[in-house]
Amino acid sequence: MATDEKQGGQPRFIASRTEDYAQWYVDVVLKTKLADYAPVAGCMIIRPYGYTLWENMVRGLDGMFKETGHENMYFPALIPESFLKKEAEHVEGFAPECAVVTHGGGKKLEEPLVFRPTSETIIWAAYKKWISSYRDLPLLYNQWANVVRWEMRTRLFLRTTEFLWQEGHTAHATAAEAQAEALTILDVYRRFAEEWLALPVLCGEKTARERFAGAVRTYCIEAMMGDKRALQSGTSHFLGQNFAKAFDVTFQNENGEHEYVWGTSWGVSTRLVGAIVMGHGDDKGLALPPRVAPTQVVVVPIYRTDDEKARVLAAAHAIPKALPKDVRIKIDDRDQMKPGWKFNEWELCGVPLRVELGPRDLQSEQVTIARRDTGEKSALPIATVGEGIPRLLDAVQHGLYDRALRFREANTFPIDTFEDFRRQVEEGGFLLSRWCGDDSCEAAVQEETKATIRCIPLDRPEDPGPCVRCGRPATGREVFARAY
Amino acid sequence: MATDEKQGGQPRFIASRTEDYAQWYVDVVLKTKLADYAPVAGCMIIRPYGYTLWENMVRGLDGMFKETGHENMYFPALIPESFLKKEAEHVEGFAPECAVVTHGGGKKLEEPLVFRPTSETIIWAAYKKWISSYRDLPLLYNQWANVVRWEMRTRLFLRTTEFLWQEGHTAHATAAEAQAEALTILDVYRRFAEEWLALPVLCGEKTARERFAGAVRTYCIEAMMGDKRALQSGTSHFLGQNFAKAFDVTFQNENGEHEYVWGTSWGVSTRLVGAIVMGHGDDKGLALPPRVAPTQVVVVPIYRTDDEKARVLAAAHAIPKALPKDVRIKIDDRDQMKPGWKFNEWELCGVPLRVELGPRDLQSEQVTIARRDTGEKSALPIATVGEGIPRLLDAVQHGLYDRALRFREANTFPIDTFEDFRRQVEEGGFLLSRWCGDDSCEAAVQEETKATIRCIPLDRPEDPGPCVRCGRPATGREVFARAY
Repeated sequence: MATDEKQGGQPRFIASRTEDYAQWYVDVVLKTKLADYAPVAGCMIIRPYGYTLWENMVRGLDGMFKETGHENMYFPALIPESFLKKEAEHVEGFAPECAVVTHGGGKKLEEPLVFRPTSETIIWAAYKKWISSYRDLPLLYNQWANVVRWEMRTRLFLRTTEFLWQEGHTAHATAAEAQAEALTILDVYRRFAEEWLALPVLCGEKTARERFAGAVRTYCIEAMMGDKRALQSGTSHFLGQNFAKAFDVTFQNENGEHEYVWGTSWGVSTRLVGAIVMGHGDDKGLALPPRVAPTQVVVVPIYRTDDEKARVLAAAHAIPKALPKDVRIKIDDRDQMKPGWKFNEWELCGVPLRVELGPRDLQSEQVTIARRDTGEKSALPIATVGEGIPRLLDAVQHGLYDRALRFREANTFPIDTFEDFRRQVEEGGFLLSRWCGDDSCEAAVQEETKATIRCIPLDRPEDPGPCVRCGRPATGREVFARAY
Repeated sequence: MATDEKQGGQPRFIASRTEDYAQWYVDVVLKTKLADYAPVAGCMIIRPYGYTLWENMVRGLDGMFKETGHENMYFPALIPESFLKKEAEHVEGFAPECAVVTHGGGKKLEEPLVFRPTSETIIWAAYKKWISSYRDLPLLYNQWANVVRWEMRTRLFLRTTEFLWQEGHTAHATAAEAQAEALTILDVYRRFAEEWLALPVLCGEKTARERFAGAVRTYCIEAMMGDKRALQSGTSHFLGQNFAKAFDVTFQNENGEHEYVWGTSWGVSTRLVGAIVMGHGDDKGLALPPRVAPTQVVVVPIYRTDDEKARVLAAAHAIPKALPKDVRIKIDDRDQMKPGWKFNEWELCGVPLRVELGPRDLQSEQVTIARRDTGEKSALPIATVGEGIPRLLDAVQHGLYDRALRFREANTFPIDTFEDFRRQVEEGGFLLSRWCGDDSCEAAVQEETKATIRCIPLDRPEDPGPCVRCGRPATGREVFARAY
């Protein structure tokens, strides 16, 4: 909830999105009480409003994992330092970000432990014990866990030293099966982002430069935020046999031969809360997709006299009873605030529907409903709220998606010359440009423009032409953008 | 799942419960794949079968927290070492068990961080920011989290260096309200243990010696395990104003005066999985309460010819469709194992109901159902499985509870003399004995018999008499036992 008695009951000020987007983001997160700063550098406290949002997201995504045959498990948070070193690229990528436990129970440890930055190493060490035959495969496991990556520059939800995530770790008998799994999960992520979070995303593959440390291929979903920057919102990795080789995980195939196991790993995190804030928020604050909103509907009773109050409150309290049980609805019957104040408050907090109910509404046997996405108000006969409110929630869910999609489309540009590229990068948006495939050319673009290749789209059409920077031949267009 | 190809498809050996209870426990946990040892001393891997059990428990308990008005949140896992030192008793209790992060991002930290052993300190530091008026109270918050306590002797689920738990942390305007909250939660724990886990528990207060470090009063639920030892299964603490004073958390009351805030904290952990194993398990292995069992019903098809197989499998696959959607049912249609092997397997894994379905059953249009709690078999017309199976699941849930209750009652003894006490302690069970209230007398009992006061029962009747050890007057009987 976002009431703030300390500010004299006034709706709270948030910075202008156009003037200071970064400050707007911080204001929205803090003032809607999604999260607060923690007394540990780079960490945050996820407050009940933010955590309930995350819980709803977890419930949705976890259900999708289970529908696709995955089971949850839990591995220790502390990993022996030596494990991390077994996969050469992996340790290079993660060692600089590790938090290290050197003492336990009052004594110096013989071997330091790292707080997991990700769990491939400890999990593949166990897979060595658990896998010996093709009959043991596949293993389709996931865990919901906290991880720590020592970050220099942190931002609430988007990049914090500790964050919550899920990490899937699967093991397969063939490369083709592991590859298919990586893409199955990418599609789960896409559907989750689009259908639950109302965020349209681009699906693609990362370049070698942006690949997960230890993966053969990294797939990703990328969303556009309200300031036209990209946010990597989930990644799915085809690991090949890299971790199987590092941890000597083999299986006997149907012909009795020993082979290394093929793997994938994949994850999304509390960063997705930030994606919702920046993907849908506007000058009034948060705009939450109904499927994950902690509160989907708020009823604000309007009255002056005691008699009006009694009648209005009675009608207000009848509304939840007329709705399907799974609608998350609140009656804001606080006496000390005025309706107008409450309107601002719930808009700031992004509640999808606001139901206004006063003596005049009662007289005409209707309620007034305001949509958070469009601001539109409409009247609904009280007798029909049972179907009308779920229908409107659906409309807001789709309205937010459509708005975000239109915004992305309006801010995606085919760019052919580096001059145009430089100019457009400053304006923001997704730039569809050709790239020769050379790592140093990609690095130069980043250095000169701060834009990176967000992904090589999975459905990328053939469109040959010169590399936007060096002019060498390229086969099609990648997605470039500045990113969080 | 508990199939184990590596052992040639034979049901796996578990130690005898009567001959070696400790080994029986380890065998059951490992061989049913609830958990495995981790490569980090004292830690464990919770495997999918164990984690799904835990998930079901979490869902049940979390629902009860929400029904009683609590919300979830999430605080950082790493706590500045100085925070722990602010409450004198608290640091004394927890400092020796801490895992300490001294390095992050390749550098030595200015201040070491401890992996939370419990989160009172970091949470009350935030409460200071969030609470200023009586209008901000109460805060009824909980978090699901991992904690680390450096333990010397560990046992799978019962005592591990890292474990999963929930920790509630509430803040109130009055002592009475905080005290009532501590007891409300104790009752939630009791109902959860009894109604979900089918474990009867005693509710009581801990003596000063066994109190949580930093609490004014610690309440607990205590269950009796299959070897007649006690297992503390949940605790709820009335913290008084201890943490409010340590972190200077005050509020302005309705009269404008500043007072310290009153608090509670409370938790249960993955230890409860161990409670289920030892509270219900028998010589055949696990026996899981239906409400939390990952699989509630397994159907084992029985056939010899291909024709029989087709008909039996068709009938088997029709059963789930006849059941309410929330029944967790599996068809064990694996071809390579014999039905008898499967029976043992699912008994070992504690599945509440086994449905046997062969050609003869088909002919008489029935299934044979075996209950895991009693071993009883009964025939059920196929046409009635839709109500019959849920009814039998209910019967197993109550059957397990009743069996555990009878066992506890048969092993609870009023004991008046120390001679009888010493003898009975060796036999095991709960000993109802008087105690003078003197800390040193309690310590002597523990030293001489390894029994501790599990609790001072909440519903303890007046029953004056001499202290079982020193003979000084006592007002009633406490519960003594050896405990995990």
